[in-house]
Amino acid sequence: MLPFESDYNNGAHPEVLHHLVETNNQTCQTYGHDQWSESARDKIRAAADAPNADIFFLTGGTQTNMTVIDGCIRPYEAVIAVETGHINIHEAGAIEFTGHKVVALPHHDGKMSSNDLKTYMQQFSEDESREHLAQPGMVYITHPTEFGTIYTKTEIEDIYAICQHYGLQLFIDGARLGYGMMADGADITLPWLSKHCDVFYIGGTKIGALCGEAVVFPHGNAPKHFFTTIKRHGALSAKGRTIGVQFDALFSDNLYFNISKHAIKMAMRLKNTLHSKGYQFFIDSPTNQQFVVISNERIHELSQKVEFTIWEPYDDNSKVCRFVTSWATTDEQMEELEKLL
Amino acid sequence: MLPFESDYNNGAHPEVLHHLVETNNQTCQTYGHDQWSESARDKIRAAADAPNADIFFLTGGTQTNMTVIDGCIRPYEAVIAVETGHINIHEAGAIEFTGHKVVALPHHDGKMSSNDLKTYMQQFSEDESREHLAQPGMVYITHPTEFGTIYTKTEIEDIYAICQHYGLQLFIDGARLGYGMMADGADITLPWLSKHCDVFYIGGTKIGALCGEAVVFPHGNAPKHFFTTIKRHGALSAKGRTIGVQFDALFSDNLYFNISKHAIKMAMRLKNTLHSKGYQFFIDSPTNQQFVVISNERIHELSQKVEFTIWEPYDDNSKVCRFVTSWATTDEQMEELEKLL
Amino acid sequence: MLPFESDYNNGAHPEVLHHLVETNNQTCQTYGHDQWSESARDKIRAAADAPNADIFFLTGGTQTNMTVIDGCIRPYEAVIAVETGHINIHEAGAIEFTGHKVVALPHHDGKMSSNDLKTYMQQFSEDESREHLAQPGMVYITHPTEFGTIYTKTEIEDIYAICQHYGLQLFIDGARLGYGMMADGADITLPWLSKHCDVFYIGGTKIGALCGEAVVFPHGNAPKHFFTTIKRHGALSAKGRTIGVQFDALFSDNLYFNISKHAIKMAMRLKNTLHSKGYQFFIDSPTNQQFVVISNERIHELSQKVEFTIWEPYDDNSKVCRFVTSWATTDEQMEELEKLL
Amino acid sequence: MLPFESDYNNGAHPEVLHHLVETNNQTCQTYGHDQWSESARDKIRAAADAPNADIFFLTGGTQTNMTVIDGCIRPYEAVIAVETGHINIHEAGAIEFTGHKVVALPHHDGKMSSNDLKTYMQQFSEDESREHLAQPGMVYITHPTEFGTIYTKTEIEDIYAICQHYGLQLFIDGARLGYGMMADGADITLPWLSKHCDVFYIGGTKIGALCGEAVVFPHGNAPKHFFTTIKRHGALSAKGRTIGVQFDALFSDNLYFNISKHAIKMAMRLKNTLHSKGYQFFIDSPTNQQFVVISNERIHELSQKVEFTIWEPYDDNSKVCRFVTSWATTDEQMEELEKLL
Repeated sequence: MLPFESDYNNGAHPEVLHHLVETNNQTCQTYGHDQWSESARDKIRAAADAPNADIFFLTGGTQTNMTVIDGCIRPYEAVIAVETGHINIHEAGAIEFTGHKVVALPHHDGKMSSNDLKTYMQQFSEDESREHLAQPGMVYITHPTEFGTIYTKTEIEDIYAICQHYGLQLFIDGARLGYGMMADGADITLPWLSKHCDVFYIGGTKIGALCGEAVVFPHGNAPKHFFTTIKRHGALSAKGRTIGVQFDALFSDNLYFNISKHAIKMAMRLKNTLHSKGYQFFIDSPTNQQFVVISNERIHELSQKVEFTIWEPYDDNSKVCRFVTSWATTDEQMEELEKLL
Repeated sequence: MLPFESDYNNGAHPEVLHHLVETNNQTCQTYGHDQWSESARDKIRAAADAPNADIFFLTGGTQTNMTVIDGCIRPYEAVIAVETGHINIHEAGAIEFTGHKVVALPHHDGKMSSNDLKTYMQQFSEDESREHLAQPGMVYITHPTEFGTIYTKTEIEDIYAICQHYGLQLFIDGARLGYGMMADGADITLPWLSKHCDVFYIGGTKIGALCGEAVVFPHGNAPKHFFTTIKRHGALSAKGRTIGVQFDALFSDNLYFNISKHAIKMAMRLKNTLHSKGYQFFIDSPTNQQFVVISNERIHELSQKVEFTIWEPYDDNSKVCRFVTSWATTDEQMEELEKLL
Repeated sequence: MLPFESDYNNGAHPEVLHHLVETNNQTCQTYGHDQWSESARDKIRAAADAPNADIFFLTGGTQTNMTVIDGCIRPYEAVIAVETGHINIHEAGAIEFTGHKVVALPHHDGKMSSNDLKTYMQQFSEDESREHLAQPGMVYITHPTEFGTIYTKTEIEDIYAICQHYGLQLFIDGARLGYGMMADGADITLPWLSKHCDVFYIGGTKIGALCGEAVVFPHGNAPKHFFTTIKRHGALSAKGRTIGVQFDALFSDNLYFNISKHAIKMAMRLKNTLHSKGYQFFIDSPTNQQFVVISNERIHELSQKVEFTIWEPYDDNSKVCRFVTSWATTDEQMEELEKLL
Repeated sequence: MLPFESDYNNGAHPEVLHHLVETNNQTCQTYGHDQWSESARDKIRAAADAPNADIFFLTGGTQTNMTVIDGCIRPYEAVIAVETGHINIHEAGAIEFTGHKVVALPHHDGKMSSNDLKTYMQQFSEDESREHLAQPGMVYITHPTEFGTIYTKTEIEDIYAICQHYGLQLFIDGARLGYGMMADGADITLPWLSKHCDVFYIGGTKIGALCGEAVVFPHGNAPKHFFTTIKRHGALSAKGRTIGVQFDALFSDNLYFNISKHAIKMAMRLKNTLHSKGYQFFIDSPTNQQFVVISNERIHELSQKVEFTIWEPYDDNSKVCRFVTSWATTDEQMEELEKLL
């Protein structure tokens, strides 16, 4: 079977694995106080041009979202996301488990519109019953989005300006951050991002690590006792080295971005193929997730030989399907896939 | 000022107050084990033709919603409501505070459509990633709705059938239940309701009580240890008599429904006046809440002499306004209002 | 049956009831913005000599404890209480429901010792693994305690000093505050208390009201959006007047303290009787709860004619029993009881 | 520095690492549906003689405890542990975060006594106010305990019998399970344990894995939708293979128990040395954690060259210190340590 259903169906990138192996025999401090976690933090600070950043390593995406959101806002505050946001759908109610409402705005190709946000906040501010509502405390966006689309600098600037105007924190879910930054036409870089939000995370699980996400508070603005907050959410790794070592490798020699770029190259090749073969695109994505509409019959055939995701119904005869490339996608896999499409 | 902004801007109905006074000097058991609470339960069971019903008295609406929902569904389950549902907006995130997601469907004049519910459940059942989603566990509807509209028997039958098919519990918020049942054309009665849902509550605060809502599990189906659940939510009255005595009065001599009927009479009179004076109705409500569109100028004038609620913006020049009658609305108030409109 | 099992087995004090009746026909603002709530707040501010106090009216004790604690401390913080503290036992886990650990210290006749608190905080501060522990954020004490005992000024000063040294808030549960302040030898007054803690509440349910507790932030130090926090906990009364009117009466003409004093007079009379009849006291209480050890046989006899509470096992042949007087206890009831003891 | 402060200061066991490396290039299903997770489950079922066991892989101990406890008991239920239990102290309030009270019984060398449990449950059952208390739903014990001690078969049988009598679930935290089973005199085996509790977990993080714990419901008794519960707690690994591969190695060729046995051998050697050098034991532990009392001066000296944990104050001049061996402890490290002691 050709594996195009996700970017976490593989093991670790060889360099990441190599670093795990070469450091394995050394002992170290626990709970993220080890030498590799410290080194990884320094490298991320350098890459993000954020010398004062507070950085924490967590295991996975949902865990990171719930810990960051619950750790940063007050109990009576809600987080604003688009309706297709990961926290609003695919996290089994983990945010609500921590006591917070997710307020859902419409999405535009997976993105939040600063106008929608502005309108919501204006109406909220003018609503005479606003003290009876969950108080907006944070805006959550994903970059790239669940549909593979990316924000422009202007779009995030506009959102961040509204956040700052209304006292909202801006949190950017970067589960696939590398793929977003390496996309054609992407103008957002790590240093820029660090100046245009309050907290974000750099996804490792989907970009070469066995597990692990790096939470970055770029302005040294981690909430008080965030370490305890992580522990309280069951998100503290006893062997913090396991993630630290991996990020130490990912942020050496630009590995994180180089391997992200490879996935984009493969994705664009796939996009061209799909285009030339006349597939109908559901959305125009510049990153490693491609969404096309395929007839039910053709889905049945293809799925004998290719693994991909059936995203949602399109009409009675066809469905939206997702094909995903990753840092691990090979030319051979691409060739085989092209033959089958 | 003429008080038309809500149905809880008054004291208790005289009969209710009288019963509080006449029983005041007697001592009794605490925590709802008193003689009046028992008597009120019996009267409600009789009125609802539900001899096995489990009945609990709580203090207010939001408290009741959060306690019932959190007490009835499993932690990983969500409650489905319409987007305008009280629990989805005006309860400050109280449901999420208990750990549950509110899944919002579109509303139709404040009501849930059984088709929307069916579609949602079908898609959920077919979604390959459904184990990554909050599991639907309950449907929440209000009768009458936040817009004063009411369900027909057929509509609730259809919703209940879908609930039973998919293993969802049906919970009906009856904060204004009496007004809904006394509306022109209403075909839903207390005995009928008791046979067509899993749990509902009979609102007292908005229909003649100082405070208090009666939660009814009509089939004797209260969750295990629901008393402890009530306590854990801070919803257990030490002097349970305070609410018990009031419901004992409300369910004597059909008081609850008689006073509801009065509010409806006043509301229909108001509706006619608004109609004859050419006001634009925002929604066609047969109950004690009437919504009309009024120009900003006119709002300014009216609000010098009348209290009413500005519900939401309509356009740049006008707003949706709500006028509410209650069991306490007098003919004199109506006449004065009519002069001003 | 003679009712000595609690101080909330009765209705409202006549003056309180009278005020409810005389204000009943007036309309007002909702959610605690009514004229009587405002008046009650002013009277409490005056009685407490705390002109800037923020005051909120909630319905009952457990609800108040969970709302105040959860509203005042951060999610990762714990509240320190004695093991017999109401929040640690008799609230069905309501504090934990809000996500907070209750750290239990030993009790001394129901009271917290400042030495125990100091030791705990010292050890916590020196514990190298303290970031892995729930962070102490608040100290909770009851005055009078669950055993009817009362703190002295010095004792609370010592506790408050430790709180301030370690950055802990001090919260005093005053469900029976009036009884504590009117006890023989009590030196703590409302103005003094207002200067020696961060937040406390004045219990109404057990001292003459049908329901209601007044939360006082004496330094104007209510947490941001505490109104929303109350709503989110299901603790906001739509008809806030119901509680406001009652406290307006309780704080007129010193009623609250006068009726408390009556209960103390009755309790001291009971204490003398018990003493003269040779009953073994379990604890020496100066307030309206008296605890004595009674043989199982005698308990059986007495309980035919008197309602009292079996508190806990004492030994194989006897149990600790609690007798409670209240503002409503009559001389006749005392005489009858004395004959039976 | 000689590393004796914990059993998770090292990397992975070479065999575990090797398996990660040799499987790295294969693609697989996500979220624990991969071939190695399936294989590991089969091997654990065989080792536990529990063919119907439901098995889930989580990342770490606190996460496992909170997910299992919250997933197995009802919201209004509490978990009973000893006061020194990991969930009661060192998990930053994670259990309370999920809404559950931890009821603490006294410990006996870290263990729960079945008598204490029985007494607690008897008193609870007879307490007339028990519906006002958190309802006991589960018993949590650790094997081996936080003090390195182990239960006998009889002790667990007695506890389990009480659990079954009172309808409590028994959950055994096996963060260091291998060390407990390989201790001198240990009579509890994996198949026996599977028949004498409702759920337990096999710790990987402290016994050779980079991360990972295996939760076992030995009777096929996983709660409904436990997968969703895991996700909701942020505990679902997207790359489930990361843990599955490691447990697949640990349960091949008896590796898990063989390497546990090595740690025990090293610990007994250490124990003998400490004994012969006249150290005062704080507790008599047959497993890989050894607790001795050391003077402050000596602690200062030793800590220049050895890493160990200061557990708690003993008296003004000395402290309880913990030395831990692991599967990774070498003869060379032992020799060096022996010279220094």
